[in-house]
Amino acid sequence: MSNALVLQTDFGMADGAVSAMYGVALGVSPALRICDLTHEIPPYDVWEASYRLIQTIAYWPAGTVFVSVVDPGVGTDRRSVVARTAGGQYVVTPDNGTLTHVKRMMGIAEVHLIDETVNRLAGSAQSYTFYGRDVYAYTGARLAAGIIDFAGVGPKTDVQSLVELPVVESTYDGERVTGTIDVLDVRFGSLWTNIPREQFELLDVRHGQRVEVLIQNDTRTIYRNLLTYARSFADVYVGEPLVYVNSLDCVAVAINQGSFAKAYGIGTGTSWKLSISRAPRLTLE
Amino acid sequence: MSNALVLQTDFGMADGAVSAMYGVALGVSPALRICDLTHEIPPYDVWEASYRLIQTIAYWPAGTVFVSVVDPGVGTDRRSVVARTAGGQYVVTPDNGTLTHVKRMMGIAEVHLIDETVNRLAGSAQSYTFYGRDVYAYTGARLAAGIIDFAGVGPKTDVQSLVELPVVESTYDGERVTGTIDVLDVRFGSLWTNIPREQFELLDVRHGQRVEVLIQNDTRTIYRNLLTYARSFADVYVGEPLVYVNSLDCVAVAINQGSFAKAYGIGTGTSWKLSISRAPRLTLE
Amino acid sequence: MSNALVLQTDFGMADGAVSAMYGVALGVSPALRICDLTHEIPPYDVWEASYRLIQTIAYWPAGTVFVSVVDPGVGTDRRSVVARTAGGQYVVTPDNGTLTHVKRMMGIAEVHLIDETVNRLAGSAQSYTFYGRDVYAYTGARLAAGIIDFAGVGPKTDVQSLVELPVVESTYDGERVTGTIDVLDVRFGSLWTNIPREQFELLDVRHGQRVEVLIQNDTRTIYRNLLTYARSFADVYVGEPLVYVNSLDCVAVAINQGSFAKAYGIGTGTSWKLSISRAPRLTLE
Repeated sequence: MSNALVLQTDFGMADGAVSAMYGVALGVSPALRICDLTHEIPPYDVWEASYRLIQTIAYWPAGTVFVSVVDPGVGTDRRSVVARTAGGQYVVTPDNGTLTHVKRMMGIAEVHLIDETVNRLAGSAQSYTFYGRDVYAYTGARLAAGIIDFAGVGPKTDVQSLVELPVVESTYDGERVTGTIDVLDVRFGSLWTNIPREQFELLDVRHGQRVEVLIQNDTRTIYRNLLTYARSFADVYVGEPLVYVNSLDCVAVAINQGSFAKAYGIGTGTSWKLSISRAPRLTLE
Repeated sequence: MSNALVLQTDFGMADGAVSAMYGVALGVSPALRICDLTHEIPPYDVWEASYRLIQTIAYWPAGTVFVSVVDPGVGTDRRSVVARTAGGQYVVTPDNGTLTHVKRMMGIAEVHLIDETVNRLAGSAQSYTFYGRDVYAYTGARLAAGIIDFAGVGPKTDVQSLVELPVVESTYDGERVTGTIDVLDVRFGSLWTNIPREQFELLDVRHGQRVEVLIQNDTRTIYRNLLTYARSFADVYVGEPLVYVNSLDCVAVAINQGSFAKAYGIGTGTSWKLSISRAPRLTLE
Repeated sequence: MSNALVLQTDFGMADGAVSAMYGVALGVSPALRICDLTHEIPPYDVWEASYRLIQTIAYWPAGTVFVSVVDPGVGTDRRSVVARTAGGQYVVTPDNGTLTHVKRMMGIAEVHLIDETVNRLAGSAQSYTFYGRDVYAYTGARLAAGIIDFAGVGPKTDVQSLVELPVVESTYDGERVTGTIDVLDVRFGSLWTNIPREQFELLDVRHGQRVEVLIQNDTRTIYRNLLTYARSFADVYVGEPLVYVNSLDCVAVAINQGSFAKAYGIGTGTSWKLSISRAPRLTLE
């Protein structure tokens, strides 16, 4: 039985582009299982593509082949690669930083360059704009179906040669943990930080206790308040903000049944810093 | 052959949450068929989750397993259940009213509580916020694939113990039928009421005849006009409003190739009443 | 093994309509593979439905069955047909112009009318509004699964009897090629014209050279500028406009990592004309 092929793009679902990728993959192997990660990555946003991969990849069986096509450099000499993660999943992608989080948080065991003289849809050499269909979906389908093995992708290359996006590490200074707001939970407006649970636990805060949350955009303070560290949203009132550990095992901030991002106009990226310290023990408590 | 697994959530498709559910389900059984009902339920809107289930569930074969995750009470002690409908489909869901319409309009034969000591993804006990992935998708996949049978879900409980949302019954007073506007056909702006076709037929109106439609929000009259009772949109002019029987066999109101909801600012819920009577016989006709 | 069933509608994915079509199709044949082309065709937009089909259909294997339901005339006596393309794919659709581009650009080998006395979901005769579920998905599933063959759809009819939308041909007057803006690449804001690459090549322009692009809406000039004819977006600066050949092998205009359509308020349809000539040789170059 072949492995699943999982597609991620910034194409949206309003036109026929994703469906053409499906058609090419099924032309390679009619029995192939194909699923979607998301096609709503903001156009050209390699950072978010990288983040969505790490959000989901560990929940898929070893052997699953991901194809991620967010490719602002299509047509340049950026490399096309297939990486095998430490978990045994594969990612077919332009080498433009899409593998940043998978490499850091999960690990990449081996990388091969795609040899397009072999791994390109027959008759597509005239097309220079739709690598997602002609090379990536085609190669991913061949790998998932077992028509080629990993070596059949093309020559092996050094894992350290992969392009990586700049990442800021979260820090702990003995009193507070500080990280960046990496991504928003789009639909619910929560802020997902890069602060791992283990680092946050250095503050020695227990569920139900309060912490001080400070959010800054560059040097401007956007938000400063005492929040409950909650096990889940249900531990606070509807409309109350909270600190919790998200499904990536990192610290997140939200409003129960509201949108924290909309409420305070919060964005993402390295200029958005969030730090947490133990709440001062107030005499009134 | 295993049964299909059909997913409904309020997660949207912009991030990796739904894909993680797919991955967990395929980890349970690589050959499982997984489909989507919708992932665009408005956040926390249990009523609409309940309505979308009844809109589609009868068209799926017996044995199909639906997983519905609209879960504002995640992390509370709300129960997690699997219901078997009178039609033989299963629904895996938090017990928060999601089963309201299925219970009333289709019937529920049997309910079991999910025993999380058995039916929870290995290694996920630390996570308190993603029941949809760790418990519901996992349990649904096991049931659809035949790894557990219905008894394997957990202890049986009383169908009457299920949480139900308050529902207002439509009425007929000998002259007019009155109901509530339950939901909008989002894309086409039609109003879907809770008035069953059988009750509407008590007015003894035939296709092509006119009826008086009155829409009120609490005590305020929003709309009052004579409309054609049409077999389908094509029986009236483009831009003309009409009354028809929708795909749920209930009365609906629309504008042919327009949006009735947008045209008159119509909402949904029990404060939105719609009543229909036979049109007065005008001397001018 | 059965062929794939591929669905396209203007229903959106926010409610249960598409899922009901899936359920009906799987009720016909539990092992059927079902995929989506798109469900985001603007409501009633037959032109775009026709265009999205030609954008993707050639990438699917012969035998694939497409079901396209954009059906402003539902309930009228418009015919329901199944066409077999020159490439061997099938399209199940109301006969309302949806087949316009496939007929012109790919060719249609044979058409049959759907005999609804045979090809209609049992028990659905009361419903007049959901042909997509009761007739089209049902018939498409039976054809894809091999339960009926092409003759089993219903009586054969003349390919020339198909309804076609009016199409304007692109022209070459010895100096400039002129066409219409047929559709937008929704997500990236590119303009896709009906000018084939072969016709554009009559201008004898090579990659890297400049051409003059003139865009008019009726008689009003909207845009006039010199653009690079590029092999791909990467050949121009970020933010720079370009002319290129799109994945349908037609001429397109875009801004690298921007939206040309938004930048200049460009629309689509036969009133939107785009013409290209060789750039005048400037003395300053």
